Amino acid sequence: MSLMRPGPTTRTLAWEVEGGRTRSGEDTLATEEPLEIRLVVAGSRYPVAVTMRTPGADFELAVGFLFNEGVLATREQLRRVSYCVDKAIDEQQRYNIVNVEMADGSANLADLVHLERHFSMTSACGVCGKATLEALHTRGYSAVPRGPELEPDVLTSLPAKLREAQALFDRTGGLHAAGLFSADGEVVAVREDVGRHNAMDKLVGWAFLNEKLPLADHVLLVSGRSSFELVQKSLSAGVAALCSVSAPSSLAVDLAREFGLTLVGFLREGKFKLYSGEERVLSASARASRKAGTSGATA
Amino acid sequence: MSLMRPGPTTRTLAWEVEGGRTRSGEDTLATEEPLEIRLVVAGSRYPVAVTMRTPGADFELAVGFLFNEGVLATREQLRRVSYCVDKAIDEQQRYNIVNVEMADGSANLADLVHLERHFSMTSACGVCGKATLEALHTRGYSAVPRGPELEPDVLTSLPAKLREAQALFDRTGGLHAAGLFSADGEVVAVREDVGRHNAMDKLVGWAFLNEKLPLADHVLLVSGRSSFELVQKSLSAGVAALCSVSAPSSLAVDLAREFGLTLVGFLREGKFKLYSGEERVLSASARASRKAGTSGATA
Repeated sequence: MSLMRPGPTTRTLAWEVEGGRTRSGEDTLATEEPLEIRLVVAGSRYPVAVTMRTPGADFELAVGFLFNEGVLATREQLRRVSYCVDKAIDEQQRYNIVNVEMADGSANLADLVHLERHFSMTSACGVCGKATLEALHTRGYSAVPRGPELEPDVLTSLPAKLREAQALFDRTGGLHAAGLFSADGEVVAVREDVGRHNAMDKLVGWAFLNEKLPLADHVLLVSGRSSFELVQKSLSAGVAALCSVSAPSSLAVDLAREFGLTLVGFLREGKFKLYSGEERVLSASARASRKAGTSGATA
Repeated sequence: MSLMRPGPTTRTLAWEVEGGRTRSGEDTLATEEPLEIRLVVAGSRYPVAVTMRTPGADFELAVGFLFNEGVLATREQLRRVSYCVDKAIDEQQRYNIVNVEMADGSANLADLVHLERHFSMTSACGVCGKATLEALHTRGYSAVPRGPELEPDVLTSLPAKLREAQALFDRTGGLHAAGLFSADGEVVAVREDVGRHNAMDKLVGWAFLNEKLPLADHVLLVSGRSSFELVQKSLSAGVAALCSVSAPSSLAVDLAREFGLTLVGFLREGKFKLYSGEERVLSASARASRKAGTSGATA
């Protein structure tokens, strides 16, 4: 690891205290550093956001963030993504600034003014849950297409696969993960970050840069909980299902139901709870039960 | 619970899927709804931020947020906190808008312009960790005063106390908690939210409204991880220590060391890791060891 470019983990000294004994030793932390995302339009730079993130997949993070915010729609609008090369800025700082250069004619200043307003308000979409959902319709969100069938056994296999992929990277106990899977449970991509939303943005940015959007027939799994914002990002990405190992919020459930996204919570070894889009899971469950000669849905 | 005013939890129907069997039943979710915070200065309203939060302690959340952002410094600057009473806004939405009215002469428009810039950028303080820390010195943050001694046994008793206090409220598995304790381990206040930062803002807002700031000689415990932002809020509040049950990030550790805050991670039954401000803990630990006739620090 270069001294100048921050890596995903950082070594430090820490004390361990246990049962009245203390000893010091080296410890590995998840790196947290600011990343500034700048849009470059017709040669001018516009700072759009600063997010605290774990270095790594920075271009994917910047692009995924802008895609989710509606600034980038297609790969053609993107000319180039690069770290800042301004010689006036010290070297470490350059790796904390990503320039996203738009192709000619793909953005105008009116959009940027709207964008600035959007970020300064965090949300420009009414101040109750219902208004928030309605605003997404007007922003062009549409219902998730029917299918695919999702086998319960496949879903319950995902947390172990995510942990296995994450174990390769996370030696800190401090990183959130977002994993993308095919409907039959194959790992497609995994991204990590100190921030849950960043991990998801990195995954979506990866799909954007590889022209894999919309991610129809795919399943997302996140560590932690499902919030309104994670469901919104799932809808942007076009997946069929969002799973989490913990609880969803009320607005996450409302939003998933509004657009027919399958929402799974408390996904554990052998069981889970199903809050929305249950037809994708229950049809597969009923078929599996018939095949096995056992009883299917009981309620 | 009134139909019109959202409560902290929401009932919904969900399916439980386990071992090939499915059944539907009622489930309790943590409510997530937007809250708009508006500053009222000389009769004019300025929307400052919209945050997704769990309803409850909304005034504390608004005030704690503004205190942490440097908009509010003392209780005297505050005239009144209230829900929106605009009859043009429907009833449910009113409970999602909090007006924070400043006393005459305690805010001016130049501050508000600065504030808007601050929020639109998330951070106005350089784009590397080091610059971020330096900026806090210029914003008036100062070193945490010496003391108090923190007994390891007291620290390891805190997670169970937080869980016990939280059990009263959280029936959803989906709420983060922030707890404030005296240095000898007494629970002072606990707040919950779907967002970690909101739980902390509610706690600090409670202290602000009750004129208990700075919270010298107090200890904060948060569920989840310690980030830069949570350390920053701890410094604003003036506590001696921030503890979490999981890992801190690199920048959380750097910031805690910069200002001498005791930072404890992985706080579990009988053990923890100590990243900063170790003198408060190690002196108590050494004294306890001498008393018990066992060996103290070994490294």
